[in-house]
Amino acid sequence: MAFDVERVAKIAKEVSYKLLGISTEVKDRTLLRAAELIEEKRDLIEAENRKDLIAGEEKGLSKAMLDRLLLNEKRIKGMAQVLRDVASLSDPVGEVVKMWTRPNGLRIGKMRVPLGVVAIIYESRPNVTVEAGSLCIKSSNAVILKGGSEAINSNRVLVNILKEAATSEGFPEEAIQFIDTTERKAVKELLLLDQYVDVVIPRGGEGLIRFVAENARMPVIKHYKGVCHVFVDKFADLEKAWNICFNAKVQRPGVCNAMETMLVHAEIADAFMPTMIELFKKAKVELRGDDRTRSYDPDYVKPATEEDWYAEYLDLILAVRIVDSLEEAIDHINTYGSHHSDAIVTENYTNAMKFLNLVDSAAVYVNASTRFTDGNVFGLGAEMGISTDKVHVRGPMGLEDLTIPKYIIFGNGQIRE
Amino acid sequence: MAFDVERVAKIAKEVSYKLLGISTEVKDRTLLRAAELIEEKRDLIEAENRKDLIAGEEKGLSKAMLDRLLLNEKRIKGMAQVLRDVASLSDPVGEVVKMWTRPNGLRIGKMRVPLGVVAIIYESRPNVTVEAGSLCIKSSNAVILKGGSEAINSNRVLVNILKEAATSEGFPEEAIQFIDTTERKAVKELLLLDQYVDVVIPRGGEGLIRFVAENARMPVIKHYKGVCHVFVDKFADLEKAWNICFNAKVQRPGVCNAMETMLVHAEIADAFMPTMIELFKKAKVELRGDDRTRSYDPDYVKPATEEDWYAEYLDLILAVRIVDSLEEAIDHINTYGSHHSDAIVTENYTNAMKFLNLVDSAAVYVNASTRFTDGNVFGLGAEMGISTDKVHVRGPMGLEDLTIPKYIIFGNGQIRE
Repeated sequence: MAFDVERVAKIAKEVSYKLLGISTEVKDRTLLRAAELIEEKRDLIEAENRKDLIAGEEKGLSKAMLDRLLLNEKRIKGMAQVLRDVASLSDPVGEVVKMWTRPNGLRIGKMRVPLGVVAIIYESRPNVTVEAGSLCIKSSNAVILKGGSEAINSNRVLVNILKEAATSEGFPEEAIQFIDTTERKAVKELLLLDQYVDVVIPRGGEGLIRFVAENARMPVIKHYKGVCHVFVDKFADLEKAWNICFNAKVQRPGVCNAMETMLVHAEIADAFMPTMIELFKKAKVELRGDDRTRSYDPDYVKPATEEDWYAEYLDLILAVRIVDSLEEAIDHINTYGSHHSDAIVTENYTNAMKFLNLVDSAAVYVNASTRFTDGNVFGLGAEMGISTDKVHVRGPMGLEDLTIPKYIIFGNGQIRE
Repeated sequence: MAFDVERVAKIAKEVSYKLLGISTEVKDRTLLRAAELIEEKRDLIEAENRKDLIAGEEKGLSKAMLDRLLLNEKRIKGMAQVLRDVASLSDPVGEVVKMWTRPNGLRIGKMRVPLGVVAIIYESRPNVTVEAGSLCIKSSNAVILKGGSEAINSNRVLVNILKEAATSEGFPEEAIQFIDTTERKAVKELLLLDQYVDVVIPRGGEGLIRFVAENARMPVIKHYKGVCHVFVDKFADLEKAWNICFNAKVQRPGVCNAMETMLVHAEIADAFMPTMIELFKKAKVELRGDDRTRSYDPDYVKPATEEDWYAEYLDLILAVRIVDSLEEAIDHINTYGSHHSDAIVTENYTNAMKFLNLVDSAAVYVNASTRFTDGNVFGLGAEMGISTDKVHVRGPMGLEDLTIPKYIIFGNGQIRE
């Protein structure tokens, strides 16, 4: 029999109103109990995870895929830690953001409330189940979890642990819903249920995200690719520039906040480029540059094409371009970039502020590596992902972004004339 | 030849980056100059408006539609006033909402920036052209205006005035784009251009809004219907209750923040209902009630059906229900309401706070009429409309909601370990 997606969404919606009355204490106790249970049930989790790994091997998943699927002792402890971290964050629900008084005596405020029902559609990594689940519990949202079919046994056992913790601490377990099927059509069904689901968050490859964006009737918070830049201004401190560019490219090239294009001001290129190229050479970074870049090392630097300026390599490959001005760098970033994370290296105050204001990206840096764009590193606790959208939230989506201010109005009998 | 929607959207996107460098002074001068021009060119505006009115009469538009289309001296002065009001609001762009320092010395902040390109699709009332245009100018957004075909001459002349003011004050006039066609397919084309348009806001009837929500590839901020409630608690002050209920229903029944259902606690019904029914009778309000409501005046109060609890009458009709508890009232509102504006009348502190926390609506009132839900009345200046969505903004959408915080990060050479 087909899995009843609509029933699950309807239950989530109904329970979402009950969540408005759940105290912070109950939510935190639920998270802490889930952390304990995850540690206590490590053998069970590993046994269920093994089923997924064996099925994955039979299906011929790549080594990288299997590694992302794996739950070992370290990763299980990591999930328990996430639960404890989220419990320790302050509760955004009920926070009054602003409050003012109108001439007629009405006191009007904006108070943070949960979004309602949050659906998360994600691939492979089963720890997303715990990260997303814990953030939704803490923000009083009902959550509908739809993980990848390759992780279904791992995800199911983790959901059951969250539900067990909820029941033991008085948090409504129906608020944690799991689409327990590997049927592909379940996702499409879910995306049509805008009467029950308030927002959907896809996490995974570009194909998944595009599918969700094109089929969802409810708002989508998206996390597209990262084509991040570092611009070395003519007023850059050379030591900082070498360190930052090297770190942004090499420290972990496979992630969305790694640098994919380096822009260098023509007036600093002679001083900057030779050492930078040597550093990248040693780290085996393939360079693809414009003619001026290639002039520093024509044998090593390959010619860049127009496509390279748009590319998200997620690998030890870097596009490099020499520009004649700050304005040209900003234009390049706004035109070719993905509006994710971009940095300037400069000691010049005016140029720093201009870059900050004119670069249209979710995170804009002065004199630091783009690699810092991350909910944990920013101090937001866990994150649901990184939004490159322009509404609701830009950048890492933390606990606060799982809420929305509503208006609260205190009167003493006011009527409208 | 077909109107080139894509070209318009592309120009808007390109100019949106330039707007990041425009000062508040230039924006305010543009708005004030547009106010002057609108007053100076009143004859021209009225002449163009007359073309629309004549065409509308020939097409057989209703009196109400023709009235909404009309631009007379009072309404033209009103538009000039909106421009001056928006100029006087403080600029949300560049506001740093928060700033904190991380252990590694990074200073991380959230700074408000424009959304980018905002498309507005609206019906009949041509003054929306000026309201939406002025809010987008002040918030440094490029705007794409698509008004109804019945108002095309009125809208065109108003857009040209905004553009003239822009050019004279150094604001890029390409930031104000007008879909100058009555072809229906232009809207559908616009809704597919998510590479250029960051957000679309439909304003009009439910049909238009559903069409936009189902066809748009970019985020939509929606303004659905208002099924608003007033709950008269058993601890209500009777005078306040009568005044508020009467005002919420009668003062202007045709708008989205008027009361459509009145809920009354059973323990106060005997004291409250007879006078309330008399007041509504005098104002010719048709009442549709449950059995207990009908018992107070079986001849006047018609029986309510399940459909009445969902109804947005926009007329002198009111559904009435007697409930046994605060909880029952809250359940009714969350189940049947439209999550727009709902009020409790009570002198009891605990009940007031419970209602405030548990009613899941964009605006929740204690002891005041729901009729106050409005950007101007709330003190936000002009509004783009009222959002009943759960992301980005709930309730009146003012200037601030046309911006979104991005992350800004100040370092001194930090790299990620």
